[in-house]
Amino acid sequence: MLLEKTIEGIRELDREAMERACEHQKNLIKPFGSLGLLEDVAVKIAGITGELSPDLAKKAVITCAADHGVAAKGVSAAEQEVTIQMLIGMLNGGAAINVLSRHVGAEVVCVDFGVKRAVDDPHLVVKRVGPGTADLSEGPAMTREQARAAVEGGIEAAIEQIDKGVQILATGDLGIGNTTPSSAVLAAFSGFPADLIIGKGTGISPDALKRKINAVEQAIKINKPDSRDGLDVLAKVGGFEIGGIAGVILGAASRGVPVVIDGFISGAGAMIAKALAPRSVDYMIASHLSEEPGHKIMLSWLGLKPMLHMNMRLGEGTGAVLAFNLIDAALKIVREMATFDSAGVSDAGLR
Amino acid sequence: MLLEKTIEGIRELDREAMERACEHQKNLIKPFGSLGLLEDVAVKIAGITGELSPDLAKKAVITCAADHGVAAKGVSAAEQEVTIQMLIGMLNGGAAINVLSRHVGAEVVCVDFGVKRAVDDPHLVVKRVGPGTADLSEGPAMTREQARAAVEGGIEAAIEQIDKGVQILATGDLGIGNTTPSSAVLAAFSGFPADLIIGKGTGISPDALKRKINAVEQAIKINKPDSRDGLDVLAKVGGFEIGGIAGVILGAASRGVPVVIDGFISGAGAMIAKALAPRSVDYMIASHLSEEPGHKIMLSWLGLKPMLHMNMRLGEGTGAVLAFNLIDAALKIVREMATFDSAGVSDAGLR
Repeated sequence: MLLEKTIEGIRELDREAMERACEHQKNLIKPFGSLGLLEDVAVKIAGITGELSPDLAKKAVITCAADHGVAAKGVSAAEQEVTIQMLIGMLNGGAAINVLSRHVGAEVVCVDFGVKRAVDDPHLVVKRVGPGTADLSEGPAMTREQARAAVEGGIEAAIEQIDKGVQILATGDLGIGNTTPSSAVLAAFSGFPADLIIGKGTGISPDALKRKINAVEQAIKINKPDSRDGLDVLAKVGGFEIGGIAGVILGAASRGVPVVIDGFISGAGAMIAKALAPRSVDYMIASHLSEEPGHKIMLSWLGLKPMLHMNMRLGEGTGAVLAFNLIDAALKIVREMATFDSAGVSDAGLR
Repeated sequence: MLLEKTIEGIRELDREAMERACEHQKNLIKPFGSLGLLEDVAVKIAGITGELSPDLAKKAVITCAADHGVAAKGVSAAEQEVTIQMLIGMLNGGAAINVLSRHVGAEVVCVDFGVKRAVDDPHLVVKRVGPGTADLSEGPAMTREQARAAVEGGIEAAIEQIDKGVQILATGDLGIGNTTPSSAVLAAFSGFPADLIIGKGTGISPDALKRKINAVEQAIKINKPDSRDGLDVLAKVGGFEIGGIAGVILGAASRGVPVVIDGFISGAGAMIAKALAPRSVDYMIASHLSEEPGHKIMLSWLGLKPMLHMNMRLGEGTGAVLAFNLIDAALKIVREMATFDSAGVSDAGLR
């Protein structure tokens, strides 16, 4: 039972290391707290890794791809075929996630959790659960066994990267139509109504918007997902890549590796992960606030604060990898800043 | 008249280059607009430089330092001596701005616009206007001639860097007590009352907070700054480094160089620059939203949208240099992403 063993392996954060990290921040020549989230993230990483300034040079984003039966309902601006086209674009290095990952020194790991047709590429990691989910507005998106397989595939993908030496992970997604299951996952856990979660204006027509809200309402009404059961929510209203993302997070957490969460779809995966293992949230670092209206609700349900407000809504892991650079900055502050004593700066009133 | 000549030299943005930049974004394999501010900043930089992907490798942050007579009123957590101690800390490379600038490949240029005592250091750029301002809660902070000298010193500092090959600038500040004049500048231009601008909780005691609000109220009441006259506002309720920052912005704009604006104090400088030359706003790129409550009002008065929400309130240029990395990312997207045609991705519904 890989899932159960993984969840059992998630330890509490190292409180002693976090206290030492806090003390260290207080000694640096600035008012304590004045670097805001740069300080918070450094303290969190100390708790995750047990070290004040761990080496996180080896970075990877795991971009989880899958297709969605609900795409047939016209909930998206793009046609379903674009999932596979974009997956090939990523494997060829020309997508936004490739450019931004090169920029921050991260590797892109594409994982097929179930796009419509299998893609043959030596660089593609294959954890296929099926050729896309069923239409969640007409019944469960997948079986409970498939939900488990998706999460366990994500765990395996994370562990494989960590075994190769990766020290920090990010999540990403690819799948035409996947804001619909993500909205349904959010509705299931938060109880917020679909029209409040979905709102308007992230690139689709008013008609497609109506169809999307309707699909989410139907998905909840027909499937009655049980918010106390992460696998049930995933199976009934989720997606294969959403399960994969949840697994990546659990795998990273079980190995004491920080994991940066991208936007709305990754957030849905993070909700599943939290439902399966509440402690996994301690290992998550939020990156950006997406344009997707429900993302704010999602982040507050997770208890996470995003660093970037870029109005981005692309997915792929693009927001998460941008945050890698901020995390590196936070650790350099820990390593390289002078202390009040060493610099001869008066600390009266500042610590 | 350096100031007048500089203002005259600020050209309109290159609309044709901005249109080409927009068209280019539409051809990249992502829904148009889905990279949010990364797309916006790339288009703005095209307008500023006339090029779609200009070389902005050579970066500098100009950190403007000065002291403030109002510090004697106990408006700050730190004692005034800390300005000079921190300036020396920066010149020695141990301050947060040094660490973060090394991280993003930028040079730190410290400029003394009037700290209490002159500091002797070969790396310090000296544009001293005086040994700190007068107490703005009891009369004008400086004379109109001093206000002009501060702005012209900033223009010179920017031009000197640009002449050395710097391709993108950031603003930063150092000066114990300088959120008080910055709040007064914001009050003067926006008409917002001092208690709304200052709010609570950025590291000072409730008593210091009361003294700060009182100082700003007195400054406005006694000095009656004329919001239509940038030099008048600067002279009556500003600071030497705030004038310096305004000058850096005007100098950059006059040379077609993008300038990244740090937090609250840099924002006050940006307000002065906008009052002196409305077109200068086109050359500004907002970096982060500061913890300082008035910063939101300031950014909306400037019409700028910050990329980072890091709860930072240190100044020095720390938020601005973090944004350098995001700007580099935006330009790499322009240069390196595949197009719909080249990657064989269907663009139906996405452009």
